[in-house]
Amino acid sequence: MRKIAILGSTGSIGTQTLEVVRENGDLEVLAVAAGSNITLLEAQIREFGPKLAAVWTEEKARELKSRIRDLDVKVVSGMEGLLEAAAMPGAEILVTAIVGMIGILPTIEAIKAGKDIALANKETLVTAGHIIMPLAEKYGVSILPVDSEHSAIFQSLQGGQKQALHKILLTASGGPFRGKTWAELSKIQVEDALKHPNWAMGRKITIDSSTMVNKGLEVIEAKWLFGVSVDQVEVVVQPQSIIHSMVEYVDGAVIAQLGTPDMKLPIQYALYYPQRRYLPGRRLDFSMLSQITFEKPDMETFYGLRLAYEAGRKGGSLPTVLNAANEAAVAMFLERRIGYLQIPEMIGYCMERHQNIADPTVEQILETEQETYAYIAGRDWQKP
Amino acid sequence: MRKIAILGSTGSIGTQTLEVVRENGDLEVLAVAAGSNITLLEAQIREFGPKLAAVWTEEKARELKSRIRDLDVKVVSGMEGLLEAAAMPGAEILVTAIVGMIGILPTIEAIKAGKDIALANKETLVTAGHIIMPLAEKYGVSILPVDSEHSAIFQSLQGGQKQALHKILLTASGGPFRGKTWAELSKIQVEDALKHPNWAMGRKITIDSSTMVNKGLEVIEAKWLFGVSVDQVEVVVQPQSIIHSMVEYVDGAVIAQLGTPDMKLPIQYALYYPQRRYLPGRRLDFSMLSQITFEKPDMETFYGLRLAYEAGRKGGSLPTVLNAANEAAVAMFLERRIGYLQIPEMIGYCMERHQNIADPTVEQILETEQETYAYIAGRDWQKP
Repeated sequence: MRKIAILGSTGSIGTQTLEVVRENGDLEVLAVAAGSNITLLEAQIREFGPKLAAVWTEEKARELKSRIRDLDVKVVSGMEGLLEAAAMPGAEILVTAIVGMIGILPTIEAIKAGKDIALANKETLVTAGHIIMPLAEKYGVSILPVDSEHSAIFQSLQGGQKQALHKILLTASGGPFRGKTWAELSKIQVEDALKHPNWAMGRKITIDSSTMVNKGLEVIEAKWLFGVSVDQVEVVVQPQSIIHSMVEYVDGAVIAQLGTPDMKLPIQYALYYPQRRYLPGRRLDFSMLSQITFEKPDMETFYGLRLAYEAGRKGGSLPTVLNAANEAAVAMFLERRIGYLQIPEMIGYCMERHQNIADPTVEQILETEQETYAYIAGRDWQKP
Repeated sequence: MRKIAILGSTGSIGTQTLEVVRENGDLEVLAVAAGSNITLLEAQIREFGPKLAAVWTEEKARELKSRIRDLDVKVVSGMEGLLEAAAMPGAEILVTAIVGMIGILPTIEAIKAGKDIALANKETLVTAGHIIMPLAEKYGVSILPVDSEHSAIFQSLQGGQKQALHKILLTASGGPFRGKTWAELSKIQVEDALKHPNWAMGRKITIDSSTMVNKGLEVIEAKWLFGVSVDQVEVVVQPQSIIHSMVEYVDGAVIAQLGTPDMKLPIQYALYYPQRRYLPGRRLDFSMLSQITFEKPDMETFYGLRLAYEAGRKGGSLPTVLNAANEAAVAMFLERRIGYLQIPEMIGYCMERHQNIADPTVEQILETEQETYAYIAGRDWQKP
């Protein structure tokens, strides 16, 4: 039995992780953590029998406790609860499937407790990669990427030599607005932005995918995961999402991972790494596929991606500003308080005004996050 | 210094191997063998300074000897000479870049002498894979594929687990006549068949590529190299020749190797395996590439491919018949003695009439080759 803990078990990656657990007979879930979806969390606890459950607020924790009184499950709450779940004794792998910079501290806690990390929380590496990667090396734990692109890169690097890696070709679907002009983007409504052509995902990441800020965060994440500069990461638009990403070696050979859009593949790959196991589901059928096309990303129109390259290049606390400003902006867009094009505008505004801190501590990162939120909140963003 | 010997140094793969030697500073050529191009062979000897040179006929050997009197190079001839070059003391890798079943015995000799094989001679595995692969295992030597597709599969399998391999997706350009009907093929002349859209190769392999018999031989070769059944090898037509081949694992992940059509990449990869080195040359530029398309192979029209699957499935001496009949047929076509569609007709004719020998010895394989030639010579093939 491989023992795991899952932060964010009720989210998109969390529920798919539990599907992988259900389909395999030899994974044991020792701890789960969720935000507020107590009903789903209760059902998960009853099915998978963890020993510990963490929920964010004390109120929800009390509610859950009362619902599962008949079970011998410890219920905890807040950051302390998250940290307890992250460091769950006996767990070998922590799946970090929560969204946001809230993932940083639990990831550090788990690394210090010697657990491998199945990383589905982008913000951790984007904002604290300079802390996380050396820490993982120090404690001898693996950081196993769970999102589709980084898993594809990781898979493509297997058996290769690090020093022979020339560049990373990070593929992007281009999102639902690929090919649109600035004028067209200015009219985008929440409903339009929530439709993604290839992947079913959460709301925040679907918006991020449409603005290509998500791809920008992935560029920075790739920098840390694979020890390259952001300029060694080239975004290639591949609208069919068949090629999940590629690497180019010094001899010109390009190794790619292709597949159907199924997140269970990278999840299962991370959980059993380096083993591959049978996974039920559709397979790529090249006789049905007809074509794969490629385009350059349009970094003028989708300039959130360009801002991410800038943040990744400069490093320090700037990626935190990028990430926090984007979070705030997307939340405001989803609340219909700002227009679609104000998302990159707000990111640029905050990045421009930020005094970059080189090599920030976790405290400085979290402070920068709060400052960025405050900065955005302190200005009147009129919807055009 | 990595020490190598090259059989077929004046051919297409041989000369490109020497280009790789020229571009790297640390490969030493100890022995070369060629058929009859004495002029080029002399130039190669003067540039690369091998200690041994083998040529096929005694007459050519005498001629070469007189030309390079001023050098301290031993000149040998015939099969004995080839075997001496194959077993060259001090050589670590033998590049088998000669065409035809003439490659079998030298390959065996080299394996017994403990040399790794950079295999560019298809016929060896097609006809004697059941002898070569166990022998290589017994002597602890590696069989490193040099042709583009098998190298791509080999590269895609690095870091993967053999038991997790589900199938091999062998890509094919489809040749110059892809999409043509039977009636159109019947009018094909030698000049038409010698034009290949993507790869510059020798005459025989260019014809084989146009009939897809080459792809059929590769299917059988893949079976031996990677320990799968021919029905685990699926031919995928990918006309742009960007994807050089792929593998699908049990979890549905497809790993592919892509690149420009440059044979120096697989040659260099085999010579330095598992290291990758910088290789000068064009790189894939995805922003220029626009698209990769896929098709099913047309095994009705190009039924030489179907015959190869049949030969690979039944095994024994049948792949030898396929290969020998094809060699004889292609030679006759190039001499304009038969029509284009008579190539697969002759293969089918010989296969149908052959009494299959299970697990043939090398002697039986070579006898079957001669019998097939005699069988074809003994019938009147009227050009339609």
